[in-house]
Amino acid sequence: MAKVGIIMGSDSDLAIMAKAADVLAEFGLEAEMKILSAHRCPEEAAAYAKTAAERGIDVIIAGAGLAAHLPGVLAAYTTLPVIGVPLQAGPLAGQDALYAIVQMPPGVPVATVGIDGAKNAGLLAVQILATQDKALRDKLAAYKEKQRAEVLNKSEKLAAVGYRQYLKDKAEK
Amino acid sequence: MAKVGIIMGSDSDLAIMAKAADVLAEFGLEAEMKILSAHRCPEEAAAYAKTAAERGIDVIIAGAGLAAHLPGVLAAYTTLPVIGVPLQAGPLAGQDALYAIVQMPPGVPVATVGIDGAKNAGLLAVQILATQDKALRDKLAAYKEKQRAEVLNKSEKLAAVGYRQYLKDKAEK
Amino acid sequence: MAKVGIIMGSDSDLAIMAKAADVLAEFGLEAEMKILSAHRCPEEAAAYAKTAAERGIDVIIAGAGLAAHLPGVLAAYTTLPVIGVPLQAGPLAGQDALYAIVQMPPGVPVATVGIDGAKNAGLLAVQILATQDKALRDKLAAYKEKQRAEVLNKSEKLAAVGYRQYLKDKAEK
Amino acid sequence: MAKVGIIMGSDSDLAIMAKAADVLAEFGLEAEMKILSAHRCPEEAAAYAKTAAERGIDVIIAGAGLAAHLPGVLAAYTTLPVIGVPLQAGPLAGQDALYAIVQMPPGVPVATVGIDGAKNAGLLAVQILATQDKALRDKLAAYKEKQRAEVLNKSEKLAAVGYRQYLKDKAEK
Amino acid sequence: MAKVGIIMGSDSDLAIMAKAADVLAEFGLEAEMKILSAHRCPEEAAAYAKTAAERGIDVIIAGAGLAAHLPGVLAAYTTLPVIGVPLQAGPLAGQDALYAIVQMPPGVPVATVGIDGAKNAGLLAVQILATQDKALRDKLAAYKEKQRAEVLNKSEKLAAVGYRQYLKDKAEK
Amino acid sequence: MAKVGIIMGSDSDLAIMAKAADVLAEFGLEAEMKILSAHRCPEEAAAYAKTAAERGIDVIIAGAGLAAHLPGVLAAYTTLPVIGVPLQAGPLAGQDALYAIVQMPPGVPVATVGIDGAKNAGLLAVQILATQDKALRDKLAAYKEKQRAEVLNKSEKLAAVGYRQYLKDKAEK
Amino acid sequence: MAKVGIIMGSDSDLAIMAKAADVLAEFGLEAEMKILSAHRCPEEAAAYAKTAAERGIDVIIAGAGLAAHLPGVLAAYTTLPVIGVPLQAGPLAGQDALYAIVQMPPGVPVATVGIDGAKNAGLLAVQILATQDKALRDKLAAYKEKQRAEVLNKSEKLAAVGYRQYLKDKAEK
Amino acid sequence: MAKVGIIMGSDSDLAIMAKAADVLAEFGLEAEMKILSAHRCPEEAAAYAKTAAERGIDVIIAGAGLAAHLPGVLAAYTTLPVIGVPLQAGPLAGQDALYAIVQMPPGVPVATVGIDGAKNAGLLAVQILATQDKALRDKLAAYKEKQRAEVLNKSEKLAAVGYRQYLKDKAEK
Repeated sequence: MAKVGIIMGSDSDLAIMAKAADVLAEFGLEAEMKILSAHRCPEEAAAYAKTAAERGIDVIIAGAGLAAHLPGVLAAYTTLPVIGVPLQAGPLAGQDALYAIVQMPPGVPVATVGIDGAKNAGLLAVQILATQDKALRDKLAAYKEKQRAEVLNKSEKLAAVGYRQYLKDKAEK
Repeated sequence: MAKVGIIMGSDSDLAIMAKAADVLAEFGLEAEMKILSAHRCPEEAAAYAKTAAERGIDVIIAGAGLAAHLPGVLAAYTTLPVIGVPLQAGPLAGQDALYAIVQMPPGVPVATVGIDGAKNAGLLAVQILATQDKALRDKLAAYKEKQRAEVLNKSEKLAAVGYRQYLKDKAEK
Repeated sequence: MAKVGIIMGSDSDLAIMAKAADVLAEFGLEAEMKILSAHRCPEEAAAYAKTAAERGIDVIIAGAGLAAHLPGVLAAYTTLPVIGVPLQAGPLAGQDALYAIVQMPPGVPVATVGIDGAKNAGLLAVQILATQDKALRDKLAAYKEKQRAEVLNKSEKLAAVGYRQYLKDKAEK
Repeated sequence: MAKVGIIMGSDSDLAIMAKAADVLAEFGLEAEMKILSAHRCPEEAAAYAKTAAERGIDVIIAGAGLAAHLPGVLAAYTTLPVIGVPLQAGPLAGQDALYAIVQMPPGVPVATVGIDGAKNAGLLAVQILATQDKALRDKLAAYKEKQRAEVLNKSEKLAAVGYRQYLKDKAEK
Repeated sequence: MAKVGIIMGSDSDLAIMAKAADVLAEFGLEAEMKILSAHRCPEEAAAYAKTAAERGIDVIIAGAGLAAHLPGVLAAYTTLPVIGVPLQAGPLAGQDALYAIVQMPPGVPVATVGIDGAKNAGLLAVQILATQDKALRDKLAAYKEKQRAEVLNKSEKLAAVGYRQYLKDKAEK
Repeated sequence: MAKVGIIMGSDSDLAIMAKAADVLAEFGLEAEMKILSAHRCPEEAAAYAKTAAERGIDVIIAGAGLAAHLPGVLAAYTTLPVIGVPLQAGPLAGQDALYAIVQMPPGVPVATVGIDGAKNAGLLAVQILATQDKALRDKLAAYKEKQRAEVLNKSEKLAAVGYRQYLKDKAEK
Repeated sequence: MAKVGIIMGSDSDLAIMAKAADVLAEFGLEAEMKILSAHRCPEEAAAYAKTAAERGIDVIIAGAGLAAHLPGVLAAYTTLPVIGVPLQAGPLAGQDALYAIVQMPPGVPVATVGIDGAKNAGLLAVQILATQDKALRDKLAAYKEKQRAEVLNKSEKLAAVGYRQYLKDKAEK
Repeated sequence: MAKVGIIMGSDSDLAIMAKAADVLAEFGLEAEMKILSAHRCPEEAAAYAKTAAERGIDVIIAGAGLAAHLPGVLAAYTTLPVIGVPLQAGPLAGQDALYAIVQMPPGVPVATVGIDGAKNAGLLAVQILATQDKALRDKLAAYKEKQRAEVLNKSEKLAAVGYRQYLKDKAEK
């Protein structure tokens, strides 16, 4: 049973929001994905948030662009943690979505990640679930260690071949 | 019976939003004022918008600050024109509210006025009502003429007394 | 006879502003379209706004980019509701046009929609006309319902095929 | 034993960050508060984050202004969820701190709340803890209900006394 | 006979715009000052610009805040150089006025100075007039020399008394 | 003999700055063009500005991007009117250059045009020269009239063929 | 003999720039302070930078607000490291000065610190001098250690008295 | 032995950061280049900064994008001068990185250059090293002279061939 819901306002958001599902899958977690617009089907969006907890959802991830109301609207209908992903849509580079998601009034928080930060939204959901799941916490530690090793390997390669060669090798890939 | 609803998310918004009601009163129009938060009482806000038309409301004015979702949320539940007033609250000078109100996705418009522009929101509501009301249109013409005369009177006074004296007189008021 | 005027400052704005006309056409409404620059032919722009009401126009939509004065200039010459569309032109992503349109001084409102939001401008005009036209209000309700159904259909498809397949199908289109 | 750590870079941040502790106290939760600068005592800040989980901490709240590195630096040393609070310090109104906290690179998320949003940071911590604590979830539901009632009470009072009287009463408080 | 017109949209702009008149007076030049709003009395504003040249005006200075259309509107009706002064009014610190004045479309320039830069607007008008007036150019050279001497005198005093004493002396003034 | 100098900091600015020379040429005016960087050859830039007036230059146009000091540096060494053109270079879309040019301190004005607004800079130079040249003023009036006619012709074509056909015709060009 | 020059464009900048001199004094270093405007006395500013190295200056600190050209102008005339301090002056909160200082073109760097960051400018100068001075490097280590201890002392006090008492004590100071 | 360390958070930053190494190489200086993320391998980054001085490093250059903590984190662990390069990564055009690097709190400076300004970072490192190295200072003087000559050569070519031919020649290259 899915413990994480991933909601987006439009299927044009799916390519970015898929990164949250990908990360969850890396940790063996399934996600319930829905396209539910705060403005085009507000009642279905509200109903989703109101019933999420009873269906076993522990964390909701919501992505939206422009006047991005979806994460805040979902947060209005649930006490579950809602993670908001501001999406880069339209001419303002996601700055509009960032403000519309992060600047929630006192009383109704949304845990905001960076613009187009769906991968981090997925990881944050794992971190939240891991507070009650020792196995998940161990997987997170391993994931962190792998990230570290990847950087250090690259740094070693850079030291070994020099930056001009490194750039050439990278360009060839 | 009120034809204009004025909704705000918090009573801290009332001092500004009162200007919309004041303008409506100047035109002999009553307003239905409510404090309904998109985040703290979302169902009441939704219900308000859904039933507004049948209760005789023709235009909704909604003001909110920060991640200002209220106008867009109301617009999601009605086909009436919704006028959004971004309010200056918190450190971002209303820029957050402006983006969160004006950048609505295609399909669900909000007629946005300037930051703290409640007076203009009231006037816009009158203009919308006036499209079906000749008497109101005449009052608008008179209002416009009065604005014009006030500016020209000041300009004449400035020409008459000179700018140094004008500033002194103004400071004394 | 057209009830909506669509004015723009340059024919380079036409591709975007056409979306307003398209929406109006969906609702069976004709638009009077003009290219009238606030800076290059100010007298014709002023004359347009001054005579719009007597020619039967109920709502004016005006789009402009950069130091976008056109909507405000038209509003100065009429008591009709003026809907302003900030256009993305030049390097500032439409932020300049947004400010130049939405930040109107008290007394002369412009109903501003999002950057390049001509479709919403058209819908807002329909909403305004619908306040005096029951048939139009019914069409708006149907339009809203259709929007809702489209989102829910996509959500169902996403649930049915999974996000990886959905993205593949979309890429193939 | 405290399950939430509240860390800030300077004691000038304490007046704001205290709101997080206040909210936690409303829910019967204790917080471990520390002043640990990412720049002035980086080793102590790192050590805090590295040992937080083993000391029983489930969530870390970190507030910082200007080039606000503290939340990200703590997140680099732990797999616990880290909630970042951008603080309004210096001339840029907290915009600098917001960017420095929310725009974390892929792999190391920070759950960002609004500028000076320490109260929401506290609530978000409660929501995260509540995913493993039914009693806490019930308290959150009651808290939400109380918020709702407060807004509706104010709205009723506004309807009863009118906006002019409401503003007078408010001014007298 | 005045060669410079100083126009502003409201008498609330007069305290700043007076600095332009003050500078002109330092150079022995009279200014014709008017309060003419682009939005509240657009026809008078247009008429002013259209007839300015024939009345002997050589340069127009126009100040406005918010969606500051006045300089551009005047420029639309004249071929005289128009100097625009963006005024700090409302919450956006004059950024809105700056964009609305400086980002004029090709074909209709406005010579923009800094926010609240009325003194520089006056000087720029003098510089423009001085291109046809040798005596004025000499006065400008003397003015520049005086500015230079003032800075150098302060620098010498700073060297003589040290910065701590300099700050004390300044605080006492 | 050239009356207008056109200075730029780098030959990468030439494609834009050429528009100023093109406009001047339309009015039969020659321009003296130089590449003189405020940072790479500051003494030559200073010398240019100091000697410009005696060589018969009446107006200086200066374009620069990034931390665009060139117009202000030239203005520091001359009492001629200096027109500044902020150029779009680097990631900040010309916003950096705009601030660095328009926000000059009191005493040393720069007449700033829009970002990449070299054409308007050229026109502004013509307007300044026209204050002492009746023939030039007549040419400006004709230029303005031509602009007006072009817009109105397009508007008539739009009315004649309809917007769908107009867009097709435009796409074919 | 002073190894650090501290230059500012106006004596209104002195209160902030004094913090750089204060820090240098803490390290036993004298500073040569001058008021030299890039715009009002450009030749003296240029001469200062050109002769600084031969007079024994190793680092120049320059502070300026608005279109802050001073640091870049000095850098144009010297190969010494120039540290730029953007000052908060005027309505744009120092954002204009930040851009005008930090966005220098390739070839002429300015080492920029934060807005009003004169203290950090002084410290950076010490760090630069310390690259050739072991005693200074030791003093920097001690300074850093003192900073660390101050933070940790406050953190201990906070743990000891609790945040409510800490805030009371602080308010009483 | 390298006196300059060049550190970046990811190998995607290498193409830009290579420009710093290229400049150093022009001056006969070697650089120690490492990929060390403040978030993915914070302990290695800290260790690098702590031991840099004893390994003979005199200046550290650090580049990072987004919430760019790397330069500040390195500065927290060393008293060496740290030069920060904000990199353009993600949708905010490097504005996020600029704020996250330049707005360091008092006590821990970072010498910030422009967005993607790695070349200037290299030059600034040379300038810092040159304060203790007469030969390097002479090379800097020659470098500056070469820059100057290049600009003046281009200016002469422009004067000789005219701007239309110059642009044609440039386009052909």
